[in-house]
Amino acid sequence: MSAHVRQVSPFRWEGIGVAPYKHVGTHFAGITRQLLFDGGDGLSCQLRYFEIEPGGYSSLERHHHAHAIMVVRGSGRVLIAEEIADLAINDLVRVPPLTWHQFRADGAPLGFLCMVDCARDIPERPDAAALAALRADPVIAEFIRI
Amino acid sequence: MSAHVRQVSPFRWEGIGVAPYKHVGTHFAGITRQLLFDGGDGLSCQLRYFEIEPGGYSSLERHHHAHAIMVVRGSGRVLIAEEIADLAINDLVRVPPLTWHQFRADGAPLGFLCMVDCARDIPERPDAAALAALRADPVIAEFIRI
Repeated sequence: MSAHVRQVSPFRWEGIGVAPYKHVGTHFAGITRQLLFDGGDGLSCQLRYFEIEPGGYSSLERHHHAHAIMVVRGSGRVLIAEEIADLAINDLVRVPPLTWHQFRADGAPLGFLCMVDCARDIPERPDAAALAALRADPVIAEFIRI
Repeated sequence: MSAHVRQVSPFRWEGIGVAPYKHVGTHFAGITRQLLFDGGDGLSCQLRYFEIEPGGYSSLERHHHAHAIMVVRGSGRVLIAEEIADLAINDLVRVPPLTWHQFRADGAPLGFLCMVDCARDIPERPDAAALAALRADPVIAEFIRI
């Protein structure tokens, strides 16, 4: 990439494509991905921008790698382990290893940066037992989308 | 850190201190540092927030590690190698290895995120020969602060 990449319209950058969140699946909705920095030059991490439209959500998943997230557009909510938090601009979210998490946008879009290691494991989705455990809490049961 | 860290006032976060840019030196001015994410849980990178007040500047320096930067507040300019670019909100900047670079804020503050490997080398400042080479270009000569 060039040394300087301009934002050409809100949250769109020159030369950076808007990609599907994941290639296949019906366990997410209304979410796109843009890869802002893809490691290189010895840099061990990627920086991605995800945007969820109102009513959309990311996968309910967990994995060994950690996420470091900063909200940069709109608002929304996130489930991390057993906590549901309201998210506002510039809030930070840390998703520890093997922790169930899911992001949702409600009345506004939710755009966030996510820093993640270039080398990382594949996310795991909840099986029936994990879903039952999550749904034991009625607030979480109402929140999650699968 | 907690899983969710709120922004408590613009570009200030609960529990995250505002630190000096560097511990000692007179080769920078009007710049602060906040460490938003400090690796951990296997994450190889840090995410820092730097803010330069109008008239301020970061060190003119280079190093082996790469920087991946996103402007999130205000505007400014950056020197990367032999290019001076105007920076606006959400612009991205990649600083390759061993490339002289310096950020400056002009009429507005300049706030930016910087993703960087946790394990990295110490920056190098230009010696007389490097400064003379940089100053061979009158535009760069006018821009740089040491």
